[in-house]
Amino acid sequence: MQGLHLTADLRGVDAALALMTDPDRLAQACRDAVRTSGLSGVAELMHRFGPADGQSGITGVVLLAESHLAVHTWPELGSVTLDVYVCNYGGDNSRKARQLLDTLITAFGPTEVSRQHLLRG
Amino acid sequence: MQGLHLTADLRGVDAALALMTDPDRLAQACRDAVRTSGLSGVAELMHRFGPADGQSGITGVVLLAESHLAVHTWPELGSVTLDVYVCNYGGDNSRKARQLLDTLITAFGPTEVSRQHLLRG
Repeated sequence: MQGLHLTADLRGVDAALALMTDPDRLAQACRDAVRTSGLSGVAELMHRFGPADGQSGITGVVLLAESHLAVHTWPELGSVTLDVYVCNYGGDNSRKARQLLDTLITAFGPTEVSRQHLLRG
Repeated sequence: MQGLHLTADLRGVDAALALMTDPDRLAQACRDAVRTSGLSGVAELMHRFGPADGQSGITGVVLLAESHLAVHTWPELGSVTLDVYVCNYGGDNSRKARQLLDTLITAFGPTEVSRQHLLRG
């Protein structure tokens, strides 16, 4: 179960962006990005930390056949954290993982991005 | 949204352990470990990759008020990967994150553990 875990911590994201506070919009963006990257979503869960007032942050995950995508939004800080973890059991999914992360970073349009990665397993 | 992301990749886990293949048992263990550590679960999702034959692996997440816990089991390899990510917005949750990870490692009883961590945000 060797794999690659990519993280990106974003700053300077527009808090008025629907992706920051609307779980349905965030879920759709995640689903689309997973599909475009060639990875396989198998289940998803989104949780909004407060009322639907356009100000509450969201934690969301998409479980992948290849491991998982996790997103946390902090509209009050203009921040987002992204995790893409793929195992490479049955094939090297590293390129797909990078594409998924890049697509979501672009969707949030941050002014700053801090990237890290771990080789796992 | 500065935080601490801990990972542990386990080998030599007994494939016959219920936690490896039973989503309900895994969910209960995760809930108990989260509560004992003093962190706050807000939602959870478990997905089994095949029939309930005691051989299919599971991907599970517990969304936390403080970020997330993720678990992937590979009974066919005797392997498990664990992620505990906590933000330290409103307080330092690092000690609680380590306790949560340690509790789950103990529950799986691996012969080998590879730990890594990232400072995020």
